[in-house]
Amino acid sequence: MSRLDSFIRRLEAQRLCLDWAVSSLDAPGAVLELGLGNGRTYDHLRERIAGGRPIYAFDRHLAAHPACVPPAETLCLGELRETLPAFAAKRVPVALAHADLGSGDAAATAALAAWLGPMLARVVGDGGLVLSDQPLDAPQLRRVEPPAGVPADRYFVYRRG
Amino acid sequence: MSRLDSFIRRLEAQRLCLDWAVSSLDAPGAVLELGLGNGRTYDHLRERIAGGRPIYAFDRHLAAHPACVPPAETLCLGELRETLPAFAAKRVPVALAHADLGSGDAAATAALAAWLGPMLARVVGDGGLVLSDQPLDAPQLRRVEPPAGVPADRYFVYRRG
Repeated sequence: MSRLDSFIRRLEAQRLCLDWAVSSLDAPGAVLELGLGNGRTYDHLRERIAGGRPIYAFDRHLAAHPACVPPAETLCLGELRETLPAFAAKRVPVALAHADLGSGDAAATAALAAWLGPMLARVVGDGGLVLSDQPLDAPQLRRVEPPAGVPADRYFVYRRG
Repeated sequence: MSRLDSFIRRLEAQRLCLDWAVSSLDAPGAVLELGLGNGRTYDHLRERIAGGRPIYAFDRHLAAHPACVPPAETLCLGELRETLPAFAAKRVPVALAHADLGSGDAAATAALAAWLGPMLARVVGDGGLVLSDQPLDAPQLRRVEPPAGVPADRYFVYRRG
Protein backbone atom coordinates (compact mmCIF):
# COMPACT_ATOMS: atom_id res chain seq x y z
CA MET A 1 0.00 0.00 0.00
CA SER A 2 1.45 3.35 -1.01
CA ARG A 3 1.44 6.35 1.28
CA LEU A 4 -1.23 7.85 -0.98
CA ASP A 5 -3.40 4.75 -0.46
CA SER A 6 -2.75 4.88 3.27
CA PHE A 7 -3.58 8.58 3.50
CA ILE A 8 -6.87 8.14 1.62
CA ARG A 9 -7.78 5.26 3.93
CA ARG A 10 -7.04 7.34 6.99
CA LEU A 11 -9.20 10.23 5.77
CA GLU A 12 -12.04 7.89 4.84
CA ALA A 13 -11.83 6.25 8.28
CA GLN A 14 -11.84 9.68 9.88
CA ARG A 15 -14.94 10.70 7.93
CA LEU A 16 -16.73 7.44 8.77
CA CYS A 17 -15.99 7.98 12.46
CA LEU A 18 -17.11 11.61 12.40
CA ASP A 19 -20.34 10.81 10.57
CA TRP A 20 -21.05 7.89 12.88
CA ALA A 21 -20.36 10.00 15.97
CA VAL A 22 -22.60 12.84 14.78
CA SER A 23 -25.43 10.40 14.13
CA SER A 24 -24.84 8.77 17.55
CA LEU A 25 -24.95 11.92 19.67
CA ASP A 26 -27.72 11.46 22.16
CA ALA A 27 -26.62 13.81 24.92
CA PRO A 28 -26.79 17.59 24.70
CA GLY A 29 -23.51 19.46 24.71
CA ALA A 30 -20.82 21.06 22.66
CA VAL A 31 -18.32 19.52 20.27
CA LEU A 32 -14.55 19.94 20.66
CA GLU A 33 -12.19 19.90 17.70
CA LEU A 34 -8.69 19.39 19.11
CA GLY A 35 -6.17 20.26 16.42
CA LEU A 36 -8.00 22.58 14.02
CA GLY A 37 -5.21 22.45 11.43
CA ASN A 38 -6.43 23.47 8.00
CA GLY A 39 -10.01 23.19 9.23
CA ARG A 40 -11.22 20.33 7.01
CA THR A 41 -12.72 18.23 9.78
CA TYR A 42 -14.03 21.35 11.53
CA ASP A 43 -15.82 22.21 8.28
CA HIS A 44 -17.15 18.66 8.07
CA LEU A 45 -18.44 18.73 11.64
CA ARG A 46 -20.16 22.10 11.31
CA GLU A 47 -21.79 20.94 8.07
CA ARG A 48 -23.12 17.73 9.61
CA ILE A 49 -24.03 18.84 13.09
CA ALA A 50 -27.54 20.17 13.37
CA GLY A 51 -29.30 22.01 16.15
CA GLY A 52 -26.90 24.70 17.12
CA ARG A 53 -24.32 22.69 19.07
CA PRO A 54 -21.30 24.96 19.43
CA ILE A 55 -18.00 23.59 18.08
CA TYR A 56 -14.96 24.74 20.04
CA ALA A 57 -11.75 24.51 18.01
CA PHE A 58 -8.32 24.28 19.62
CA ASP A 59 -4.96 24.79 18.00
CA ARG A 60 -1.54 26.15 18.84
CA HIS A 61 -1.70 28.73 16.06
CA LEU A 62 -4.43 29.53 13.58
CA ALA A 63 -3.54 27.78 10.30
CA ALA A 64 -7.03 27.13 8.96
CA HIS A 65 -8.24 27.89 5.46
CA PRO A 66 -9.95 31.31 5.52
CA ALA A 67 -13.33 29.62 4.88
CA CYS A 68 -12.84 27.41 7.96
CA VAL A 69 -11.94 29.91 10.67
CA PRO A 70 -14.24 29.43 13.67
CA PRO A 71 -15.97 32.38 15.32
CA ALA A 72 -13.68 34.06 17.85
CA GLU A 73 -15.83 32.98 20.80
CA THR A 74 -15.29 29.28 19.94
CA LEU A 75 -11.62 29.49 18.92
CA CYS A 76 -9.11 28.48 21.60
CA LEU A 77 -5.55 29.27 20.51
CA GLY A 78 -2.45 28.31 22.46
CA GLU A 79 -0.91 25.23 24.01
CA LEU A 80 -3.57 22.57 24.51
CA ARG A 81 -2.16 21.82 27.97
CA GLU A 82 -3.23 25.35 28.90
CA THR A 83 -6.30 25.99 26.75
CA LEU A 84 -8.10 22.72 27.47
CA PRO A 85 -7.85 23.00 31.29
CA ALA A 86 -9.02 26.63 30.97
CA PHE A 87 -11.98 25.43 28.93
CA ALA A 88 -12.69 22.65 31.45
CA ALA A 89 -12.87 25.25 34.22
CA LYS A 90 -15.88 26.82 32.48
CA ARG A 91 -17.82 23.55 32.87
CA VAL A 92 -19.37 23.73 29.40
CA PRO A 93 -21.23 20.46 28.74
CA VAL A 94 -19.44 18.47 26.03
CA ALA A 95 -20.99 15.65 23.99
CA LEU A 96 -18.19 14.88 21.53
CA ALA A 97 -14.46 15.49 21.34
CA HIS A 98 -12.44 14.82 18.20
CA ALA A 99 -8.67 14.79 18.58
CA ASP A 100 -6.39 14.70 15.54
CA LEU A 101 -3.09 15.49 17.16
CA GLY A 102 -0.50 13.13 15.78
CA SER A 103 2.63 14.86 14.54
CA GLY A 104 5.87 13.63 13.07
CA ASP A 105 7.33 13.53 16.58
CA ALA A 106 6.22 10.13 17.94
CA ALA A 107 7.47 10.74 21.50
CA ALA A 108 5.73 14.13 21.78
CA THR A 109 2.53 12.66 20.30
CA ALA A 110 2.55 9.79 22.82
CA ALA A 111 3.16 12.18 25.72
CA LEU A 112 0.31 14.43 24.60
CA ALA A 113 -2.04 11.45 24.23
CA ALA A 114 -1.10 10.20 27.72
CA TRP A 115 -2.06 13.59 29.14
CA LEU A 116 -5.15 13.96 26.95
CA GLY A 117 -7.00 10.77 27.96
CA PRO A 118 -7.59 11.69 31.63
CA MET A 119 -8.19 15.32 30.66
CA LEU A 120 -10.93 14.41 28.17
CA ALA A 121 -12.46 12.07 30.74
CA ARG A 122 -12.95 15.23 32.85
CA VAL A 123 -14.25 17.42 30.03
CA VAL A 124 -16.63 15.08 28.19
CA GLY A 125 -19.98 14.36 29.83
CA ASP A 126 -21.37 10.95 30.68
CA GLY A 127 -22.34 9.08 27.54
CA GLY A 128 -20.29 11.46 25.43
CA LEU A 129 -17.99 10.29 22.66
CA VAL A 130 -14.28 10.72 22.04
CA LEU A 131 -12.67 10.12 18.65
CA SER A 132 -8.90 10.13 18.42
CA ASP A 133 -6.17 9.37 15.95
CA GLN A 134 -4.11 8.23 18.96
CA PRO A 135 -5.00 5.62 21.58
CA LEU A 136 -6.15 7.22 24.84
CA ASP A 137 -6.24 5.77 28.30
CA ALA A 138 -8.48 6.74 31.20
CA PRO A 139 -10.65 4.62 33.50
CA GLN A 140 -13.79 6.55 32.50
CA LEU A 141 -13.21 6.11 28.76
CA ARG A 142 -14.55 2.81 27.48
CA ARG A 143 -13.24 1.81 24.08
CA VAL A 144 -15.99 0.99 21.62
CA GLU A 145 -15.83 -0.56 18.18
CA PRO A 146 -15.31 1.94 15.39
CA PRO A 147 -18.04 1.99 12.72
CA ALA A 148 -18.01 -0.57 9.91
CA GLY A 149 -15.33 0.09 7.34
CA VAL A 150 -12.83 1.59 9.77
CA PRO A 151 -9.75 -0.62 10.06
CA ALA A 152 -8.80 -1.58 13.60
CA ASP A 153 -6.25 0.78 15.11
CA ARG A 154 -6.66 3.42 12.42
CA TYR A 155 -9.04 5.47 14.57
CA PHE A 156 -9.91 5.12 18.25
CA VAL A 157 -13.43 5.55 19.58
CA TYR A 158 -14.38 5.87 23.25
CA ARG A 159 -17.58 6.45 25.16
CA ARG A 160 -17.44 8.03 28.58
CA GLY A 161 -18.92 6.12 31.46
CA MET B 1 -19.90 19.07 0.44
CA SER B 2 -17.45 19.73 3.27
CA ARG B 3 -13.81 20.49 2.64
CA LEU B 4 -13.03 17.03 4.01
CA ASP B 5 -15.36 15.48 1.41
CA SER B 6 -13.81 17.62 -1.29
CA PHE B 7 -10.26 16.73 -0.26
CA ILE B 8 -11.01 13.00 -0.26
CA ARG B 9 -12.57 13.33 -3.72
CA ARG B 10 -9.54 15.15 -5.03
CA LEU B 11 -7.15 12.48 -3.69
CA GLU B 12 -9.28 9.68 -5.08
CA ALA B 13 -9.41 11.43 -8.48
CA GLN B 14 -5.65 11.85 -8.34
CA ARG B 15 -5.14 8.17 -7.59
CA LEU B 16 -7.53 7.10 -10.35
CA CYS B 17 -5.64 9.29 -12.82
CA LEU B 18 -2.23 8.01 -11.71
CA ASP B 19 -3.31 4.36 -11.86
CA TRP B 20 -4.93 4.87 -15.26
CA ALA B 21 -1.84 6.64 -16.60
CA VAL B 22 0.51 3.94 -15.33
CA SER B 23 -1.61 1.25 -16.97
CA SER B 24 -1.78 3.31 -20.20
CA LEU B 25 1.96 3.87 -20.64
CA ASP B 26 2.90 2.41 -23.97
CA ALA B 27 6.02 4.40 -24.79
CA PRO B 28 9.38 3.91 -23.10
CA GLY B 29 10.64 6.77 -20.99
CA ALA B 30 10.95 8.28 -17.57
CA VAL B 31 8.26 9.64 -15.27
CA LEU B 32 8.35 13.20 -13.91
CA GLU B 33 6.83 14.13 -10.58
CA LEU B 34 6.50 17.91 -10.51
CA GLY B 35 5.90 19.01 -6.95
CA LEU B 36 7.26 16.23 -4.76
CA GLY B 37 5.73 17.69 -1.59
CA ASN B 38 5.44 15.09 1.15
CA GLY B 39 6.10 12.36 -1.42
CA ARG B 40 2.75 10.53 -1.30
CA THR B 41 2.15 10.46 -5.04
CA TYR B 42 5.84 9.78 -5.67
CA ASP B 43 5.53 6.76 -3.40
CA HIS B 44 2.39 5.69 -5.25
CA LEU B 45 4.06 6.01 -8.65
CA ARG B 46 7.19 4.11 -7.64
CA GLU B 47 5.02 1.35 -6.17
CA ARG B 48 2.89 0.98 -9.29
CA ILE B 49 5.44 1.52 -12.02
CA ALA B 50 7.18 -1.63 -13.11
CA GLY B 51 10.16 -2.20 -15.30
CA GLY B 52 12.72 0.22 -14.01
CA ARG B 53 11.38 3.50 -15.39
CA PRO B 54 13.21 6.24 -13.51
CA ILE B 55 11.04 8.76 -11.67
CA TYR B 56 12.51 12.27 -11.54
CA ALA B 57 11.07 14.34 -8.70
CA PHE B 58 11.10 18.14 -8.72
CA ASP B 59 10.51 20.49 -5.84
CA ARG B 60 11.65 23.85 -4.59
CA HIS B 61 12.89 22.39 -1.30
CA LEU B 62 12.94 18.83 -0.02
CA ALA B 63 9.91 18.38 2.26
CA ALA B 64 9.21 14.70 1.67
CA HIS B 65 8.61 12.10 4.34
CA PRO B 66 11.94 10.34 5.04
CA ALA B 67 10.56 7.14 3.47
CA CYS B 68 9.74 9.00 0.26
CA VAL B 69 13.00 10.77 -0.53
CA PRO B 70 14.06 9.96 -4.10
CA PRO B 71 17.62 8.89 -4.90
CA ALA B 72 19.89 11.91 -5.33
CA GLU B 73 20.37 11.24 -9.04
CA THR B 74 16.62 11.64 -9.69
CA LEU B 75 15.95 14.52 -7.30
CA CYS B 76 15.82 17.98 -8.89
CA LEU B 77 15.66 20.69 -6.25
CA GLY B 78 15.20 24.39 -6.97
CA GLU B 79 12.87 26.63 -8.92
CA LEU B 80 10.98 24.59 -11.52
CA ARG B 81 11.53 27.34 -14.08
CA GLU B 82 15.25 26.53 -13.79
CA THR B 83 15.32 22.82 -13.00
CA LEU B 84 12.87 21.69 -15.70
CA PRO B 85 14.66 23.47 -18.59
CA ALA B 86 17.94 22.05 -17.26
CA PHE B 87 16.37 18.59 -17.29
CA ALA B 88 14.98 19.19 -20.80
CA ALA B 89 18.47 19.98 -22.04
CA LYS B 90 19.55 16.44 -21.17
CA ARG B 91 16.99 15.06 -23.64
CA VAL B 92 15.93 12.20 -21.35
CA PRO B 93 12.94 10.44 -22.95
CA VAL B 94 9.80 11.08 -20.85
CA ALA B 95 6.61 9.02 -21.01
CA LEU B 96 4.58 10.59 -18.21
CA ALA B 97 4.58 13.85 -16.28
CA HIS B 98 2.46 14.43 -13.20
CA ALA B 99 2.13 18.02 -11.99
CA ASP B 100 0.55 18.84 -8.64
CA LEU B 101 1.54 22.45 -8.30
CA GLY B 102 -1.48 24.39 -7.14
CA SER B 103 -0.79 26.61 -4.15
CA GLY B 104 -2.91 29.02 -2.17
CA ASP B 105 -1.73 31.81 -4.49
CA ALA B 106 -4.13 31.59 -7.46
CA ALA B 107 -2.27 34.15 -9.60
CA ALA B 108 1.12 32.46 -9.11
CA THR B 109 -0.43 29.04 -9.80
CA ALA B 110 -2.01 30.29 -13.05
CA ALA B 111 1.27 31.89 -14.17
CA LEU B 112 3.20 28.69 -13.44
CA ALA B 113 0.62 26.60 -15.34
CA ALA B 114 0.79 28.97 -18.33
CA TRP B 115 4.56 28.45 -18.45
CA LEU B 116 4.37 24.73 -17.76
CA GLY B 117 2.12 23.67 -20.65
CA PRO B 118 4.50 24.60 -23.51
CA MET B 119 7.47 23.42 -21.41
CA LEU B 120 5.98 19.97 -20.88
CA ALA B 121 5.10 19.79 -24.57
CA ARG B 122 8.87 20.01 -25.17
CA VAL B 123 9.85 17.52 -22.48
CA VAL B 124 7.28 14.75 -22.90
CA GLY B 125 7.70 12.43 -25.88
CA ASP B 126 5.13 11.75 -28.58
CA GLY B 127 2.25 9.70 -27.20
CA GLY B 128 3.31 10.53 -23.64
CA LEU B 129 0.85 11.55 -20.96
CA VAL B 130 0.54 14.63 -18.78
CA LEU B 131 -1.58 14.72 -15.63
CA SER B 132 -2.11 18.04 -13.92
CA ASP B 133 -4.14 19.55 -11.12
CA GLN B 134 -4.20 22.74 -13.23
CA PRO B 135 -5.40 23.20 -16.82
CA LEU B 136 -2.46 23.40 -19.25
CA ASP B 137 -2.36 24.84 -22.73
CA ALA B 138 -0.03 23.94 -25.57
CA PRO B 139 -0.75 23.07 -29.21
CA GLN B 140 0.96 19.69 -28.85
CA LEU B 141 -1.02 18.68 -25.75
CA ARG B 142 -4.37 17.16 -26.62
CA ARG B 143 -6.83 17.00 -23.76
CA VAL B 144 -8.24 13.53 -23.21
CA GLU B 145 -11.06 12.36 -20.98
CA PRO B 146 -9.98 11.49 -17.46
CA PRO B 147 -10.69 7.92 -16.38
CA ALA B 148 -14.15 6.96 -15.16
CA GLY B 149 -14.92 8.27 -11.70
CA VAL B 150 -12.88 11.44 -12.05
CA PRO B 151 -15.14 14.51 -11.97
CA ALA B 152 -14.68 16.91 -14.86
CA ASP B 153 -12.22 19.70 -14.06
CA ARG B 154 -10.90 18.02 -10.94
CA TYR B 155 -7.88 16.64 -12.78
CA PHE B 156 -6.60 17.39 -16.27
CA VAL B 157 -5.25 14.72 -18.60
CA TYR B 158 -3.35 15.35 -21.84
CA ARG B 159 -1.65 13.20 -24.42
CA ARG B 160 1.14 14.64 -26.49
CA GLY B 161 0.78 14.59 -30.29
